[in-house]
Amino acid sequence: MAFHTQRRVEFRHTDAAGIAHFSAFLAYAEEAEHEFLRSLGLSVLMRDEQGALSWPRVSVRADFQGAVRFEDELDIAVSVARLGAKSVTYQFQFTHGDRPVATAETTAVCCRLSTTGPPQSIAIPAWAAEKLQPHVTDDARD
Amino acid sequence: MAFHTQRRVEFRHTDAAGIAHFSAFLAYAEEAEHEFLRSLGLSVLMRDEQGALSWPRVSVRADFQGAVRFEDELDIAVSVARLGAKSVTYQFQFTHGDRPVATAETTAVCCRLSTTGPPQSIAIPAWAAEKLQPHVTDDARD
Amino acid sequence: MAFHTQRRVEFRHTDAAGIAHFSAFLAYAEEAEHEFLRSLGLSVLMRDEQGALSWPRVSVRADFQGAVRFEDELDIAVSVARLGAKSVTYQFQFTHGDRPVATAETTAVCCRLSTTGPPQSIAIPAWAAEKLQPHVTDDARD
Amino acid sequence: MAFHTQRRVEFRHTDAAGIAHFSAFLAYAEEAEHEFLRSLGLSVLMRDEQGALSWPRVSVRADFQGAVRFEDELDIAVSVARLGAKSVTYQFQFTHGDRPVATAETTAVCCRLSTTGPPQSIAIPAWAAEKLQPHVTDDARD
Repeated sequence: MAFHTQRRVEFRHTDAAGIAHFSAFLAYAEEAEHEFLRSLGLSVLMRDEQGALSWPRVSVRADFQGAVRFEDELDIAVSVARLGAKSVTYQFQFTHGDRPVATAETTAVCCRLSTTGPPQSIAIPAWAAEKLQPHVTDDARD
Repeated sequence: MAFHTQRRVEFRHTDAAGIAHFSAFLAYAEEAEHEFLRSLGLSVLMRDEQGALSWPRVSVRADFQGAVRFEDELDIAVSVARLGAKSVTYQFQFTHGDRPVATAETTAVCCRLSTTGPPQSIAIPAWAAEKLQPHVTDDARD
Repeated sequence: MAFHTQRRVEFRHTDAAGIAHFSAFLAYAEEAEHEFLRSLGLSVLMRDEQGALSWPRVSVRADFQGAVRFEDELDIAVSVARLGAKSVTYQFQFTHGDRPVATAETTAVCCRLSTTGPPQSIAIPAWAAEKLQPHVTDDARD
Repeated sequence: MAFHTQRRVEFRHTDAAGIAHFSAFLAYAEEAEHEFLRSLGLSVLMRDEQGALSWPRVSVRADFQGAVRFEDELDIAVSVARLGAKSVTYQFQFTHGDRPVATAETTAVCCRLSTTGPPQSIAIPAWAAEKLQPHVTDDARD
Protein backbone atom coordinates (compact mmCIF):
# COMPACT_ATOMS: atom_id res chain seq x y z
CA MET A 1 0.00 0.00 0.00
CA ALA A 2 2.96 2.33 0.59
CA PHE A 3 3.97 4.81 -2.07
CA HIS A 4 7.63 4.42 -3.09
CA THR A 5 10.09 6.86 -4.60
CA GLN A 6 13.88 6.96 -5.05
CA ARG A 7 16.45 9.65 -4.30
CA ARG A 8 20.19 9.71 -4.77
CA VAL A 9 22.36 11.43 -2.11
CA GLU A 10 23.52 14.72 -3.60
CA PHE A 11 27.03 16.07 -3.03
CA ARG A 12 25.79 19.23 -1.34
CA HIS A 13 23.91 17.04 1.16
CA THR A 14 27.12 15.40 2.37
CA ASP A 15 29.21 16.96 5.13
CA ALA A 16 32.83 17.01 6.26
CA ALA A 17 32.27 13.71 8.09
CA GLY A 18 31.91 12.22 4.59
CA ILE A 19 28.27 11.12 5.01
CA ALA A 20 24.82 12.49 4.20
CA HIS A 21 23.90 15.22 6.68
CA PHE A 22 20.82 14.41 8.78
CA SER A 23 18.92 17.34 7.27
CA ALA A 24 19.06 15.63 3.86
CA PHE A 25 16.69 12.92 5.10
CA LEU A 26 14.13 15.48 6.18
CA ALA A 27 14.43 17.23 2.83
CA TYR A 28 13.99 13.93 0.98
CA ALA A 29 11.03 13.01 3.21
CA GLU A 30 9.32 16.28 2.36
CA GLU A 31 9.99 15.82 -1.36
CA ALA A 32 8.60 12.26 -1.13
CA GLU A 33 5.50 13.50 0.72
CA HIS A 34 4.85 16.11 -1.96
CA GLU A 35 5.36 13.53 -4.71
CA PHE A 36 2.89 11.27 -2.91
CA LEU A 37 0.37 14.14 -2.71
CA ARG A 38 0.80 14.85 -6.43
CA SER A 39 0.16 11.17 -7.18
CA LEU A 40 -3.24 11.67 -5.49
CA GLY A 41 -4.01 14.91 -7.33
CA LEU A 42 -3.28 16.95 -4.20
CA SER A 43 -0.60 19.52 -3.38
CA VAL A 44 0.92 20.96 -0.24
CA LEU A 45 0.04 24.44 -1.50
CA MET A 46 -3.37 24.68 -3.15
CA ARG A 47 -5.80 27.42 -4.00
CA ASP A 48 -9.54 27.00 -3.78
CA GLU A 49 -12.31 29.57 -4.06
CA GLN A 50 -11.56 30.81 -0.52
CA GLY A 51 -7.84 31.41 -1.03
CA ALA A 52 -4.64 29.50 -0.29
CA LEU A 53 -4.46 26.23 1.66
CA SER A 54 -1.23 24.79 2.98
CA TRP A 55 -0.06 22.07 5.38
CA PRO A 56 2.52 23.41 7.85
CA ARG A 57 4.27 20.77 9.91
CA VAL A 58 3.54 20.65 13.62
CA SER A 59 5.92 17.77 14.30
CA VAL A 60 8.84 16.00 12.65
CA ARG A 61 10.80 13.04 13.96
CA ALA A 62 13.61 11.04 12.38
CA ASP A 63 15.71 8.15 13.61
CA PHE A 64 18.89 7.10 11.87
CA GLN A 65 20.12 3.51 11.76
CA GLY A 66 23.00 3.90 9.35
CA ALA A 67 25.06 6.32 7.31
CA VAL A 68 24.90 6.83 3.55
CA ARG A 69 27.38 8.55 1.28
CA PHE A 70 27.44 10.65 -1.87
CA GLU A 71 25.62 9.00 -4.79
CA ASP A 72 24.10 6.22 -2.66
CA GLU A 73 20.56 5.56 -3.83
CA LEU A 74 17.73 5.58 -1.29
CA ASP A 75 14.31 4.00 -1.56
CA ILE A 76 11.70 5.97 0.37
CA ALA A 77 8.39 4.33 1.35
CA VAL A 78 5.62 6.79 2.26
CA SER A 79 2.45 5.86 4.13
CA VAL A 80 -0.27 7.63 6.11
CA ALA A 81 0.01 6.61 9.76
CA ARG A 82 -2.95 8.68 10.95
CA LEU A 83 -5.61 10.78 9.28
CA GLY A 84 -7.29 13.10 11.77
CA ALA A 85 -9.97 15.73 11.30
CA LYS A 86 -7.41 18.51 10.96
CA SER A 87 -4.06 16.78 10.58
CA VAL A 88 -2.29 13.98 8.77
CA THR A 89 0.73 11.97 9.95
CA TYR A 90 3.05 10.50 7.34
CA GLN A 91 5.61 7.75 7.87
CA PHE A 92 8.78 7.32 5.85
CA GLN A 93 11.17 4.39 5.63
CA PHE A 94 14.55 4.91 3.98
CA THR A 95 16.49 1.92 2.72
CA HIS A 96 19.77 1.67 0.78
CA GLY A 97 19.75 -1.69 -0.98
CA ASP A 98 18.54 -4.08 1.73
CA ARG A 99 19.86 -1.95 4.55
CA PRO A 100 17.39 0.22 6.54
CA VAL A 101 19.04 3.61 7.08
CA ALA A 102 16.37 5.86 8.57
CA THR A 103 12.72 6.26 9.51
CA ALA A 104 10.83 9.52 9.80
CA GLU A 105 7.37 10.72 10.79
CA THR A 106 5.86 14.12 10.14
CA THR A 107 2.51 15.58 11.13
CA ALA A 108 1.01 18.37 9.02
CA VAL A 109 -2.02 20.47 9.83
CA CYS A 110 -4.40 21.73 7.16
CA CYS A 111 -4.32 25.53 7.25
CA ARG A 112 -5.84 28.51 5.56
CA LEU A 113 -3.07 31.01 4.72
CA SER A 114 -3.21 34.77 4.97
CA THR A 115 -0.52 37.27 4.03
CA THR A 116 -0.88 39.11 7.32
CA GLY A 117 -1.83 36.85 10.24
CA PRO A 118 -0.57 33.37 11.10
CA PRO A 119 -1.88 30.27 9.24
CA GLN A 120 -5.31 29.17 10.62
CA SER A 121 -5.94 25.48 11.23
CA ILE A 122 -9.10 24.18 9.50
CA ALA A 123 -10.81 20.79 9.02
CA ILE A 124 -9.30 18.81 6.15
CA PRO A 125 -11.71 19.30 3.22
CA ALA A 126 -13.68 16.14 2.36
CA TRP A 127 -12.25 15.97 -1.18
CA ALA A 128 -8.71 15.82 0.27
CA ALA A 129 -9.53 13.36 3.07
CA GLU A 130 -11.13 10.98 0.54
CA LYS A 131 -7.93 10.79 -1.43
CA LEU A 132 -5.73 10.18 1.61
CA GLN A 133 -8.03 7.61 3.27
CA PRO A 134 -7.10 4.56 1.15
CA HIS A 135 -3.44 5.06 2.07
CA VAL A 136 -3.90 4.91 5.83
CA THR A 137 -1.84 1.96 7.10
CA ASP A 138 -3.62 -1.07 8.51
CA ASP A 139 -1.97 -0.59 11.88
CA ALA A 140 -3.48 2.84 12.22
CA ARG A 141 -6.99 1.56 11.50
CA ASP A 142 -6.98 -0.83 14.42
CA MET B 1 21.87 26.90 33.23
CA ALA B 2 20.81 26.78 29.59
CA PHE B 3 23.05 28.25 26.90
CA HIS B 4 21.27 30.91 24.83
CA THR B 5 21.87 32.19 21.34
CA GLN B 6 19.88 34.28 18.83
CA ARG B 7 19.09 33.76 15.16
CA ARG B 8 17.13 35.84 12.70
CA VAL B 9 14.92 34.09 10.12
CA GLU B 10 16.70 34.37 6.77
CA PHE B 11 14.83 34.99 3.53
CA ARG B 12 15.99 31.74 1.94
CA HIS B 13 14.53 29.87 4.94
CA THR B 14 11.03 31.15 4.22
CA ASP B 15 8.72 29.34 1.80
CA ALA B 16 5.82 30.15 -0.49
CA ALA B 17 3.44 29.90 2.49
CA GLY B 18 5.19 33.07 3.71
CA ILE B 19 6.65 31.51 6.89
CA ALA B 20 9.91 29.91 8.00
CA HIS B 21 10.18 26.39 6.59
CA PHE B 22 10.35 23.67 9.25
CA SER B 23 13.85 22.69 8.14
CA ALA B 24 15.13 26.11 9.22
CA PHE B 25 14.51 25.22 12.87
CA LEU B 26 16.59 22.07 12.57
CA ALA B 27 19.37 24.05 10.88
CA TYR B 28 19.26 26.69 13.63
CA ALA B 29 19.22 23.97 16.32
CA GLU B 30 22.34 22.42 14.85
CA GLU B 31 24.08 25.79 14.63
CA ALA B 32 23.12 26.49 18.25
CA GLU B 33 24.42 23.07 19.34
CA HIS B 34 27.75 23.72 17.64
CA GLU B 35 27.98 27.18 19.18
CA PHE B 36 27.29 25.60 22.58
CA LEU B 37 30.05 23.03 21.98
CA ARG B 38 32.49 25.80 20.99
CA SER B 39 31.62 27.65 24.21
CA LEU B 40 32.87 24.53 26.06
CA GLY B 41 36.04 24.21 23.97
CA LEU B 42 34.55 21.25 22.06
CA SER B 43 33.59 20.77 18.42
CA VAL B 44 31.34 18.45 16.46
CA LEU B 45 34.33 17.51 14.30
CA MET B 46 37.57 17.08 16.21
CA ARG B 47 40.89 15.41 15.62
CA ASP B 48 42.85 13.66 18.32
CA GLU B 49 45.94 11.47 18.10
CA GLN B 50 43.80 8.57 16.81
CA GLY B 51 42.13 10.45 13.94
CA ALA B 52 38.79 12.20 13.42
CA LEU B 53 35.91 12.19 15.92
CA SER B 54 32.41 13.32 15.03
CA TRP B 55 28.88 13.18 16.47
CA PRO B 56 26.37 11.91 13.91
CA ARG B 57 22.74 12.30 14.92
CA VAL B 58 20.76 9.14 15.63
CA SER B 59 17.53 10.96 16.36
CA VAL B 60 15.96 14.39 15.80
CA ARG B 61 12.54 15.57 16.88
CA ALA B 62 10.88 18.96 16.58
CA ASP B 63 7.45 20.25 17.53
CA PHE B 64 6.11 23.53 16.25
CA GLN B 65 3.75 25.74 18.22
CA GLY B 66 3.71 28.79 16.00
CA ALA B 67 4.89 30.29 12.75
CA VAL B 68 7.61 32.89 12.29
CA ARG B 69 8.34 35.07 9.29
CA PHE B 70 11.29 36.62 7.49
CA GLU B 71 13.49 38.72 9.81
CA ASP B 72 11.76 37.55 13.00
CA GLU B 73 14.37 37.08 15.71
CA LEU B 74 14.49 33.79 17.61
CA ASP B 75 16.01 33.06 20.98
CA ILE B 76 17.31 29.50 21.21
CA ALA B 77 17.94 27.90 24.61
CA VAL B 78 20.21 24.82 24.51
CA SER B 79 20.53 22.30 27.33
CA VAL B 80 21.76 18.73 27.78
CA ALA B 81 18.78 16.48 28.54
CA ARG B 82 20.80 13.29 28.87
CA LEU B 83 24.51 12.41 28.86
CA GLY B 84 25.04 8.72 28.26
CA ALA B 85 28.20 6.68 27.91
CA LYS B 86 28.17 6.95 24.13
CA SER B 87 25.54 9.56 23.31
CA VAL B 88 24.30 12.99 24.28
CA THR B 89 20.76 14.37 23.97
CA TYR B 90 20.30 18.11 23.49
CA GLN B 91 17.10 20.08 24.01
CA PHE B 92 16.23 23.32 22.25
CA GLN B 93 13.54 25.88 22.98
CA PHE B 94 12.76 28.51 20.36
CA THR B 95 10.97 31.68 21.38
CA HIS B 96 10.08 34.82 19.42
CA GLY B 97 9.64 37.60 21.93
CA ASP B 98 7.54 35.97 24.67
CA ARG B 99 5.93 33.52 22.30
CA PRO B 100 7.19 29.89 22.27
CA VAL B 101 7.44 28.79 18.64
CA ALA B 102 9.18 25.42 18.67
CA THR B 103 11.01 22.81 20.72
CA ALA B 104 13.51 20.29 19.42
CA GLU B 105 15.56 17.40 20.72
CA THR B 106 18.50 15.72 19.04
CA THR B 107 20.61 12.75 20.08
CA ALA B 108 24.17 12.48 18.81
CA VAL B 109 26.51 9.52 19.15
CA CYS B 110 30.25 9.91 19.58
CA CYS B 111 31.93 8.25 16.59
CA ARG B 112 35.35 7.55 15.19
CA LEU B 113 35.36 8.43 11.47
CA SER B 114 37.06 6.55 8.67
CA THR B 115 37.18 7.45 4.98
CA THR B 116 36.18 3.95 3.93
CA GLY B 117 33.85 2.23 6.43
CA PRO B 118 30.88 3.65 8.34
CA PRO B 119 31.42 5.82 11.47
CA GLN B 120 32.12 3.62 14.54
CA SER B 121 30.38 4.44 17.83
CA ILE B 122 32.80 4.85 20.78
CA ALA B 123 32.56 5.87 24.44
CA ILE B 124 32.52 9.64 24.89
CA PRO B 125 36.09 10.55 25.93
CA ALA B 126 36.37 11.64 29.59
CA TRP B 127 37.67 15.11 28.65
CA ALA B 128 34.52 15.73 26.58
CA ALA B 129 32.07 14.24 29.12
CA GLU B 130 33.54 16.46 31.87
CA LYS B 131 32.75 19.57 29.88
CA LEU B 132 29.18 18.52 29.07
CA GLN B 133 28.32 17.26 32.59
CA PRO B 134 27.67 20.66 34.26
CA HIS B 135 25.07 21.45 31.60
CA VAL B 136 22.89 18.40 32.17
CA THR B 137 19.44 19.69 33.17
CA ASP B 138 18.24 19.07 36.73
CA ASP B 139 15.29 17.05 35.47
CA ALA B 140 17.60 14.59 33.82
CA ARG B 141 19.62 14.07 37.02
CA ASP B 142 16.65 12.94 39.05
CA MET C 1 32.71 52.75 3.14
CA ALA C 2 31.93 49.06 2.85
CA PHE C 3 29.59 47.40 5.32
CA HIS C 4 31.23 44.46 7.11
CA THR C 5 29.78 41.39 8.77
CA GLN C 6 31.16 38.05 9.97
CA ARG C 7 30.00 34.47 9.43
CA ARG C 8 31.38 31.17 10.64
CA VAL C 9 31.32 28.15 8.30
CA GLU C 10 28.58 25.84 9.56
CA PHE C 11 28.95 22.06 9.55
CA ARG C 12 25.96 21.52 7.23
CA HIS C 13 27.65 23.86 4.71
CA THR C 14 30.69 21.59 4.41
CA ASP C 15 30.76 18.68 1.96
CA ALA C 16 32.44 15.30 1.61
CA ALA C 17 35.52 17.02 0.14
CA GLY C 18 35.95 18.46 3.65
CA ILE C 19 35.51 22.11 2.65
CA ALA C 20 32.70 24.69 2.54
CA HIS C 21 30.42 23.96 -0.41
CA PHE C 22 30.28 26.77 -2.99
CA SER C 23 26.59 27.35 -2.29
CA ALA C 24 27.45 28.43 1.26
CA PHE C 25 29.14 31.58 -0.06
CA LEU C 26 26.02 32.57 -1.99
CA ALA C 27 23.90 31.95 1.10
CA TYR C 28 26.26 34.06 3.24
CA ALA C 29 26.33 36.80 0.58
CA GLU C 30 22.55 36.97 0.63
CA GLU C 31 22.46 37.07 4.43
CA ALA C 32 25.08 39.86 4.39
CA GLU C 33 23.09 41.81 1.79
CA HIS C 34 19.95 41.59 3.93
CA GLU C 35 21.87 42.62 7.03
CA PHE C 36 23.23 45.60 5.06
CA LEU C 37 19.68 46.52 3.98
CA ARG C 38 18.46 46.32 7.58
CA SER C 39 21.30 48.61 8.65
CA LEU C 40 19.78 51.18 6.24
CA GLY C 41 16.23 50.66 7.45
CA LEU C 42 15.36 48.69 4.30
CA SER C 43 14.36 45.06 3.72
CA VAL C 44 14.37 42.67 0.81
CA LEU C 45 10.65 42.08 1.40
CA MET C 46 8.68 45.20 2.26
CA ARG C 47 5.06 46.24 2.20
CA ASP C 48 3.93 49.72 1.27
CA GLU C 49 0.45 51.07 0.63
CA GLN C 50 0.41 49.40 -2.81
CA GLY C 51 1.32 45.90 -1.60
CA ALA C 52 4.49 43.80 -1.41
CA LEU C 53 7.86 44.86 -2.84
CA SER C 54 10.75 42.46 -3.25
CA TRP C 55 14.14 42.31 -4.99
CA PRO C 56 14.53 39.12 -7.02
CA ARG C 57 18.04 38.47 -8.33
CA VAL C 58 18.60 38.69 -12.07
CA SER C 59 22.28 37.77 -11.86
CA VAL C 60 24.72 36.19 -9.40
CA ARG C 61 28.43 35.59 -9.89
CA ALA C 62 31.04 34.19 -7.52
CA ASP C 63 34.73 33.46 -7.91
CA PHE C 64 36.61 31.33 -5.43
CA GLN C 65 40.27 31.85 -4.58
CA GLY C 66 40.63 29.46 -1.70
CA ALA C 67 38.92 26.83 0.38
CA VAL C 68 37.62 27.21 3.93
CA ARG C 69 36.66 24.54 6.42
CA PHE C 70 34.16 23.96 9.21
CA GLU C 71 34.26 26.70 11.87
CA ASP C 72 36.54 29.00 9.85
CA GLU C 73 35.41 32.59 10.34
CA LEU C 74 34.77 34.75 7.30
CA ASP C 75 34.70 38.52 7.06
CA ILE C 76 32.26 39.71 4.39
CA ALA C 77 32.54 43.24 2.96
CA VAL C 78 29.40 44.47 1.18
CA SER C 79 29.31 47.46 -1.15
CA VAL C 80 27.02 48.83 -3.87
CA ALA C 81 28.80 48.57 -7.22
CA ARG C 82 25.99 50.14 -9.26
CA LEU C 83 22.65 51.76 -8.46
CA GLY C 84 20.43 51.90 -11.53
CA ALA C 85 16.88 53.16 -11.96
CA LYS C 86 15.42 49.70 -11.47
CA SER C 87 18.26 47.54 -10.19
CA VAL C 88 21.10 47.47 -7.69
CA THR C 89 24.37 45.53 -7.95
CA TYR C 90 26.10 44.45 -4.74
CA GLN C 91 29.71 43.34 -4.39
CA PHE C 92 30.99 40.98 -1.70
CA GLN C 93 34.53 40.19 -0.62
CA PHE C 94 35.12 37.18 1.61
CA THR C 95 38.32 36.95 3.63
CA HIS C 96 39.49 34.41 6.22
CA GLY C 97 42.09 36.16 8.34
CA ASP C 98 44.27 37.96 5.80
CA ARG C 99 43.51 35.46 3.05
CA PRO C 100 40.98 36.41 0.34
CA VAL C 101 38.77 33.38 -0.30
CA ALA C 102 35.99 34.55 -2.60
CA THR C 103 34.31 37.48 -4.31
CA ALA C 104 30.71 37.67 -5.41
CA GLU C 105 28.41 40.07 -7.24
CA THR C 106 24.63 39.99 -7.36
CA THR C 107 22.15 42.18 -9.20
CA ALA C 108 18.63 42.55 -7.82
CA VAL C 109 15.67 44.20 -9.52
CA CYS C 110 13.01 46.08 -7.58
CA CYS C 111 9.69 44.30 -8.14
CA ARG C 112 6.06 44.54 -7.21
CA LEU C 113 4.83 41.09 -6.13
CA SER C 114 1.49 39.50 -6.88
CA THR C 115 0.19 36.13 -5.74
CA THR C 116 -0.92 35.20 -9.24
CA GLY C 117 1.29 36.69 -11.98
CA PRO C 118 5.10 37.01 -12.11
CA PRO C 119 6.91 39.80 -10.17
CA GLN C 120 6.75 43.12 -12.08
CA SER C 121 9.89 45.27 -12.32
CA ILE C 122 9.37 48.86 -11.14
CA ALA C 123 11.57 51.94 -10.59
CA ILE C 124 13.35 51.86 -7.24
CA PRO C 125 11.31 54.15 -4.96
CA ALA C 126 13.12 57.43 -4.13
CA TRP C 127 13.12 56.68 -0.37
CA ALA C 128 15.03 53.45 -1.02
CA ALA C 129 17.46 54.90 -3.58
CA GLU C 130 18.37 57.70 -1.16
CA LYS C 131 19.45 55.19 1.44
CA LEU C 132 21.54 53.12 -0.97
CA GLN C 133 23.21 56.09 -2.74
CA PRO C 134 25.86 56.91 -0.07
CA HIS C 135 27.13 53.33 -0.27
CA VAL C 136 27.85 53.30 -4.00
CA THR C 137 31.59 52.62 -4.39
CA ASP C 138 33.82 55.40 -5.71
CA ASP C 139 34.80 53.29 -8.72
CA ALA C 140 31.21 53.06 -9.80
CA ARG C 141 30.72 56.84 -9.64
CA ASP C 142 33.49 57.56 -12.15
CA MET D 1 24.67 17.12 -28.10
CA ALA D 2 23.60 18.56 -24.78
CA PHE D 3 22.67 16.28 -21.88
CA HIS D 4 19.16 16.94 -20.59
CA THR D 5 17.54 16.29 -17.23
CA GLN D 6 14.36 17.45 -15.49
CA ARG D 7 13.73 18.87 -12.03
CA ARG D 8 10.56 20.00 -10.32
CA VAL D 9 10.67 23.08 -8.04
CA GLU D 10 10.48 21.81 -4.47
CA PHE D 11 8.48 23.62 -1.78
CA ARG D 12 11.52 24.24 0.43
CA HIS D 13 13.19 25.98 -2.55
CA THR D 14 10.45 28.60 -2.74
CA ASP D 15 10.60 31.77 -0.65
CA ALA D 16 8.21 34.29 0.87
CA ALA D 17 8.07 36.13 -2.48
CA GLY D 18 6.23 33.01 -3.71
CA ILE D 19 8.86 32.00 -6.28
CA ALA D 20 11.87 29.65 -6.47
CA HIS D 21 14.81 31.17 -4.60
CA PHE D 22 17.84 31.89 -6.79
CA SER D 23 19.93 29.36 -4.87
CA ALA D 24 17.64 26.56 -6.09
CA PHE D 25 18.94 27.02 -9.65
CA LEU D 26 22.53 26.61 -8.51
CA ALA D 27 21.58 23.49 -6.55
CA TYR D 28 19.77 22.05 -9.59
CA ALA D 29 22.71 22.95 -11.86
CA GLU D 30 25.07 21.06 -9.59
CA GLU D 31 22.76 18.06 -9.44
CA ALA D 32 22.48 18.11 -13.25
CA GLU D 33 26.28 18.35 -13.61
CA HIS D 34 26.73 15.33 -11.34
CA GLU D 35 24.08 13.39 -13.24
CA PHE D 36 25.89 14.25 -16.48
CA LEU D 37 29.19 13.03 -14.99
CA ARG D 38 27.55 9.78 -13.88
CA SER D 39 26.20 9.29 -17.42
CA LEU D 40 29.87 9.33 -18.54
CA GLY D 41 31.04 6.95 -15.82
CA LEU D 42 32.64 9.81 -13.89
CA SER D 43 31.92 11.36 -10.50
CA VAL D 44 32.64 14.64 -8.78
CA LEU D 45 34.26 12.70 -5.95
CA MET D 46 36.39 9.77 -7.05
CA ARG D 47 39.12 7.66 -5.56
CA ASP D 48 42.05 6.33 -7.57
CA GLU D 49 45.24 4.63 -6.43
CA GLN D 50 46.66 7.97 -5.26
CA GLY D 51 43.69 8.98 -3.07
CA ALA D 52 40.65 11.22 -3.48
CA LEU D 53 39.98 13.45 -6.50
CA SER D 54 37.35 16.17 -6.50
CA TRP D 55 36.32 19.15 -8.63
CA PRO D 56 35.87 22.27 -6.49
CA ARG D 57 34.21 25.20 -8.26
CA VAL D 58 36.37 28.27 -8.96
CA SER D 59 33.55 30.22 -10.57
CA VAL D 60 29.75 30.16 -10.79
CA ARG D 61 27.50 32.53 -12.70
CA ALA D 62 23.75 32.53 -13.18
CA ASP D 63 21.38 34.88 -14.98
CA PHE D 64 17.66 34.77 -14.43
CA GLN D 65 15.12 35.63 -17.13
CA GLY D 66 11.95 34.60 -15.37
CA ALA D 67 10.44 33.31 -12.17
CA VAL D 68 9.17 29.81 -11.49
CA ARG D 69 6.91 28.59 -8.72
CA PHE D 70 6.38 25.51 -6.57
CA GLU D 71 5.91 22.34 -8.63
CA ASP D 72 6.89 23.96 -11.94
CA GLU D 73 8.96 21.52 -13.97
CA LEU D 74 12.31 22.64 -15.35
CA ASP D 75 14.28 21.16 -18.23
CA ILE D 76 18.01 21.56 -17.70
CA ALA D 77 20.40 21.27 -20.67
CA VAL D 78 24.04 20.64 -19.70
CA SER D 79 26.99 21.11 -22.05
CA VAL D 80 30.76 21.54 -21.75
CA ALA D 81 31.67 25.07 -22.83
CA ARG D 82 35.43 24.64 -22.34
CA LEU D 83 37.71 21.76 -21.45
CA GLY D 84 41.10 23.03 -20.28
CA ALA D 85 44.14 21.14 -19.02
CA LYS D 86 43.11 21.56 -15.40
CA SER D 87 39.54 22.84 -15.48
CA VAL D 88 36.18 22.29 -17.12
CA THR D 89 33.42 24.85 -17.72
CA TYR D 90 29.82 23.66 -17.83
CA GLN D 91 26.86 25.55 -19.25
CA PHE D 92 23.26 25.11 -18.13
CA GLN D 93 20.02 26.27 -19.73
CA PHE D 94 16.84 26.12 -17.69
CA THR D 95 13.49 26.18 -19.45
CA HIS D 96 9.93 25.83 -18.15
CA GLY D 97 7.80 24.66 -21.06
CA ASP D 98 8.96 26.89 -23.92
CA ARG D 99 9.97 29.71 -21.63
CA PRO D 100 13.71 30.20 -20.87
CA VAL D 101 14.04 30.95 -17.16
CA ALA D 102 17.76 30.91 -16.39
CA THR D 103 21.24 30.18 -17.67
CA ALA D 104 24.25 29.26 -15.56
CA GLU D 105 27.94 28.54 -16.04
CA THR D 106 30.29 26.90 -13.58
CA THR D 107 34.01 26.21 -13.77
CA ALA D 108 35.46 23.34 -11.77
CA VAL D 109 39.13 22.54 -11.23
CA CYS D 110 40.41 19.00 -10.92
CA CYS D 111 41.97 18.64 -7.46
CA ARG D 112 43.71 16.11 -5.31
CA LEU D 113 42.17 16.20 -1.80
CA SER D 114 43.96 15.90 1.51
CA THR D 115 42.45 15.87 4.98
CA THR D 116 44.93 18.45 6.25
CA GLY D 117 46.00 20.96 3.56
CA PRO D 118 43.88 22.69 0.90
CA PRO D 119 42.84 20.85 -2.30
CA GLN D 120 45.72 20.80 -4.85
CA SER D 121 44.96 21.54 -8.52
CA ILE D 122 46.21 18.84 -10.92
CA ALA D 123 45.95 18.11 -14.64
CA ILE D 124 42.69 16.40 -15.57
CA PRO D 125 43.57 12.69 -15.95
CA ALA D 126 43.47 11.50 -19.59
CA TRP D 127 40.73 8.93 -18.85
CA ALA D 128 38.46 11.72 -17.58
CA ALA D 129 39.28 14.21 -20.37
CA GLU D 130 38.49 11.56 -23.00
CA LYS D 131 35.00 11.15 -21.64
CA LEU D 132 34.27 14.88 -21.47
CA GLN D 133 35.77 15.75 -24.90
CA PRO D 134 32.82 14.57 -27.09
CA HIS D 135 30.50 16.87 -25.14
CA VAL D 136 32.42 20.10 -25.74
CA THR D 137 30.06 22.44 -27.60
CA ASP D 138 30.84 23.34 -31.21
CA ASP D 139 31.17 27.01 -30.34
CA ALA D 140 33.94 26.24 -27.91
CA ARG D 141 35.92 24.28 -30.52
CA ASP D 142 36.19 27.22 -32.95
